[in-house]
Amino acid sequence: MTTGKINVSVENIFPLIKKFLYSDHEIFLRELVSNATDATLKLKHLTSIGEAKVEYGNPIIEVKIDKEGKKLHIIDQGIGMTADEVEKYINQVAFSGAEEFLEKYKDSAKDSGIIGHFGLGFYSAFMVAEKVEIITKSFKDEPAAHWTCDGSPEFTLVAHDKTERGTEIILHIAEDSLDFLEEFKIRELLTKYNKFMPVPIKFGTKKEALPKPEDAPEDYKTEYIDVDNIINNPNPAWTKQPVDLTDEDYKNFYRELYPMQFEEPLFNIHLNVDYPFNLTGILYFPKMSGDLQLQKDKIQLYQNQVFVTDNVEGIVPEFLGMLKGVIDSPDIPLNVSRSYLQADGNVKKISNYITRKVADKLKSLFNENREDFEQKWNDIKIVLEYGMLSEPKFYEKAGDFVLYPTVDDKYFTLAELKEAITANQTDKNGKLVVLYASNKDAQHSYIEIAKEKGYEVLLLDSPIVSHLIQKLEADNENLTFTRVDSDHIDKLIQKEETQISKLSEEEQGNLKTVLEEIVPKTTYSVQLEPMDSNASPFIITQPEFMRRMKEMSQTGGGGMFGMGNFPEMYNLVVNTNSELATTILNSEKSAQESLVKQALDLAKISQGLLKGEELTAFVKRSFELIK
Amino acid sequence: MTTGKINVSVENIFPLIKKFLYSDHEIFLRELVSNATDATLKLKHLTSIGEAKVEYGNPIIEVKIDKEGKKLHIIDQGIGMTADEVEKYINQVAFSGAEEFLEKYKDSAKDSGIIGHFGLGFYSAFMVAEKVEIITKSFKDEPAAHWTCDGSPEFTLVAHDKTERGTEIILHIAEDSLDFLEEFKIRELLTKYNKFMPVPIKFGTKKEALPKPEDAPEDYKTEYIDVDNIINNPNPAWTKQPVDLTDEDYKNFYRELYPMQFEEPLFNIHLNVDYPFNLTGILYFPKMSGDLQLQKDKIQLYQNQVFVTDNVEGIVPEFLGMLKGVIDSPDIPLNVSRSYLQADGNVKKISNYITRKVADKLKSLFNENREDFEQKWNDIKIVLEYGMLSEPKFYEKAGDFVLYPTVDDKYFTLAELKEAITANQTDKNGKLVVLYASNKDAQHSYIEIAKEKGYEVLLLDSPIVSHLIQKLEADNENLTFTRVDSDHIDKLIQKEETQISKLSEEEQGNLKTVLEEIVPKTTYSVQLEPMDSNASPFIITQPEFMRRMKEMSQTGGGGMFGMGNFPEMYNLVVNTNSELATTILNSEKSAQESLVKQALDLAKISQGLLKGEELTAFVKRSFELIK
Repeated sequence: MTTGKINVSVENIFPLIKKFLYSDHEIFLRELVSNATDATLKLKHLTSIGEAKVEYGNPIIEVKIDKEGKKLHIIDQGIGMTADEVEKYINQVAFSGAEEFLEKYKDSAKDSGIIGHFGLGFYSAFMVAEKVEIITKSFKDEPAAHWTCDGSPEFTLVAHDKTERGTEIILHIAEDSLDFLEEFKIRELLTKYNKFMPVPIKFGTKKEALPKPEDAPEDYKTEYIDVDNIINNPNPAWTKQPVDLTDEDYKNFYRELYPMQFEEPLFNIHLNVDYPFNLTGILYFPKMSGDLQLQKDKIQLYQNQVFVTDNVEGIVPEFLGMLKGVIDSPDIPLNVSRSYLQADGNVKKISNYITRKVADKLKSLFNENREDFEQKWNDIKIVLEYGMLSEPKFYEKAGDFVLYPTVDDKYFTLAELKEAITANQTDKNGKLVVLYASNKDAQHSYIEIAKEKGYEVLLLDSPIVSHLIQKLEADNENLTFTRVDSDHIDKLIQKEETQISKLSEEEQGNLKTVLEEIVPKTTYSVQLEPMDSNASPFIITQPEFMRRMKEMSQTGGGGMFGMGNFPEMYNLVVNTNSELATTILNSEKSAQESLVKQALDLAKISQGLLKGEELTAFVKRSFELIK
Repeated sequence: MTTGKINVSVENIFPLIKKFLYSDHEIFLRELVSNATDATLKLKHLTSIGEAKVEYGNPIIEVKIDKEGKKLHIIDQGIGMTADEVEKYINQVAFSGAEEFLEKYKDSAKDSGIIGHFGLGFYSAFMVAEKVEIITKSFKDEPAAHWTCDGSPEFTLVAHDKTERGTEIILHIAEDSLDFLEEFKIRELLTKYNKFMPVPIKFGTKKEALPKPEDAPEDYKTEYIDVDNIINNPNPAWTKQPVDLTDEDYKNFYRELYPMQFEEPLFNIHLNVDYPFNLTGILYFPKMSGDLQLQKDKIQLYQNQVFVTDNVEGIVPEFLGMLKGVIDSPDIPLNVSRSYLQADGNVKKISNYITRKVADKLKSLFNENREDFEQKWNDIKIVLEYGMLSEPKFYEKAGDFVLYPTVDDKYFTLAELKEAITANQTDKNGKLVVLYASNKDAQHSYIEIAKEKGYEVLLLDSPIVSHLIQKLEADNENLTFTRVDSDHIDKLIQKEETQISKLSEEEQGNLKTVLEEIVPKTTYSVQLEPMDSNASPFIITQPEFMRRMKEMSQTGGGGMFGMGNFPEMYNLVVNTNSELATTILNSEKSAQESLVKQALDLAKISQGLLKGEELTAFVKRSFELIK
């Protein structure tokens, strides 16, 4: 039997690190700036506990491009390294100095914000550089060290005359990575990954106007000086306590996050939890545009103020994917893959926490200022309705704040709605019938007739509303939803009353025969109804069940399979008590035909069904009538 | 000065490999089956060149679950390893046996299909297993070896009594990965990653009916036996030559790729290139559904028959992202990240090649069977139109096959169209005016009037058509596109002829005064035109430029910024030669108002602009007229 230790040879692993350590090569800058940040925060910690007897001061990190020399410099004023420490931390791939530091100072350094984990970040430099130099001077009283490595596993280490404390990393950018010497590229990366890191980062200079002297002459010209251009905000709003932030602060931070966004957010939710996981963040409800696909600014995920990704799938519940803002958690694995996240217990807890927190906030917004909440309803409803359908925990809480608006801009909660309509909208079988419209314009005539009866008509116009109605009916016994154009007014909510027909049964039979000869059978089923004599003589309706199943099948996930392709079928309801019905019955055959056709055209116009050639002919005929 | 070698210690790197080698843990199975495939293909190669004096036979790979023992077995009948080889290939992390093999046999083994590259794949086993065993018997006459490692870097290696050639990997699945012992999970992974790998893969058994014996009795019951359940197709269509494949073969392969897809593809494009890169594959044009977002089955990317990803962004030009099918290339880096792909010269070449190949195929389909191509046009136009807008190379070639259909289902190429309309549709300034409609129903009356004049009217109804028109106008001097409802018929294509007005200038002035008092100024600009006396008395038009800019701004990327929110403005064109114009002029004031309002309503109905309350009132009034 042989035993032994598996061997990793640096010659084999180094090329892999260079090529594949991160799938995005640009990550190298994030890693090196994170290292510089850690070096600075370590010094801050050691001075604060008295272990480093030096002045901490106001250290910054500088990123500098030397385009001619094809070099990129990352310079910090942090803890630095002695030659021995370089040997220990740099020459050992995957030995994390940050982990060691946190272990050594575990009680005091818990909240120091140190980022490093795996001791690999530094080596990402070789993804873009053919040679890397480190010039570093420790805060300890030891000479500076100069380390050089050309990408082979060989390095050299010599003394250096650097006197200022801190570390300078010099990347000799490789030929295939020269775009990392472009100012706009580096600015883009710093803005993407380091915009909210906790140590100020200088990138170049900018002009700043000098204050005008008191004794300035009339023709005084403003003078400018060069000042450091700091690209980050080291204290972003989410790291502060909610009590320390005003509404304006939240709005300003939104503009900081989304400089290209002109609309203001509707409201925000500040997340802040320590246990059982660490999570901070601010979520914003933006005004939703009609096209959900266009929501391109997404929620950003940070780890200790370092940008990780804007793909928060799995961490944020899907229905909140339309929100904006930031989430920061040291507990979310950096290596975010879907199957990994699904298996991670912490991540599931975070998602549930966010759902609960959002529901609580919505409830308190509703309770504190209902009028304001109602005004925002149309901008947020799609998120909430989708949440009710997709997250059972959110559905449970939705009764407290989800609104059902009417066509007249009244807003009910479900409980309020039930109470308001019980007296007038309970049918003869004891079912409570909720009437709704999906489009105020298209269903105008039907809405008017329902309102004349004193019915409330909801306006439910989201694309997923048929699914939501289906769910509400399943969970609320004796509650049924019916669109206003799904039947004629006397049958929408069936009461005991019966209307008496002016026509005899024989006359009705004759009328029906006449109608069915003229009206196309394939699309319309003719129904005679004795209605109020002032009601419309011809009405087209489409039964609720068929229409809803078709809609659900078209929007996916529900309804009956394949029903989306069923032909449209309608009822043509003819009011036997209308004058027109009598007129038709008493007319000559040829007159009957033109009367029925004109009446059918008008009923079709009311339902938006008269189109193309038929419409052109109708308009031409009508112009003839008035010329 | 110190010099030395950077050190990678296995204690540091091993935990990282276990956690982060691949972001998806499920990849381990793909890697181990790929290793088993390589072991088999190496033996095949060695027997074919006579270096291995053994019978190659019909080797398979078997994947077996031992749920009770919490073990997963991957067994091949390939080349096997001696104890020395285990020492060399396994105990050295990141030492690739496949690379060494290809180097050694570089002339003969070029097309052997061997997959391995980095020598890391085997270690992915530790992402899901707490202990891994290898039992392996080389094709050489040496005893089998048994290697065991519990995830610490320590291993043991002993002899084993295995006599059959090949390697068995045994994973002792870790507690947090027990779902990899579920049959459905393993089946899912094998189907996803290994469905087209070149060595048969057995997973369990299935029942197969025995043939009915000739002397079977009347009440014979079919007998079944257990046979190997092979989950893959080792010879997928794309690995064959186009000449060896029939239309039916291509359709069958489509069904194999997309078993849940019921519609047949419209046509396919077989890709096959050796130089300057290797690429094979088959792309299919599916029938496009209206909602592009729903196209969920995407193009699949393979590397030597191993599934890599269905995210081909960057490899396939964006406009072809709606196609389906497979692409297989050993030259595409496995580690697919966007920024990496953008920088990779090969990848850009592949994308250009695919664009050219698709254009060539479309051209030959058009030339070979124009009628068939025309029938498919509506199903493919969105892809082609998008391609013209986004890929200059495709745009250059598009003239040969892109079609412009008319409302009467004639199909022109751009050159044919120009020729067909030059005589009748050149205006007095020498501009060739292409008339189009976006909706046959909604613009029916306008289309009819244009057709009466002998004009061709195109039907251009894609959402991006305004952008395409803009581009065509820019590239074709003296060509201009105008929608049929953008002006009245005499001005759509301005000729020298002038119509004489029946009304005197004074009468026209009076008529205009009457109209402007009644018609709302904020929406309509009144224009008097002397037209044919039979033409419609009132017409609503919307100028082409404004409408197109609004459309472009709404569909993004072009048009004038912010124009999407401009209020809608229309022209109300009143035909001064119509009888109605005279009637209005000669009526009492009260009658004038009702005539103008009714005529405006009818013009609005023709343009689909009469809605809601106005429409309800119009219908009620019209029912009154006929009762």
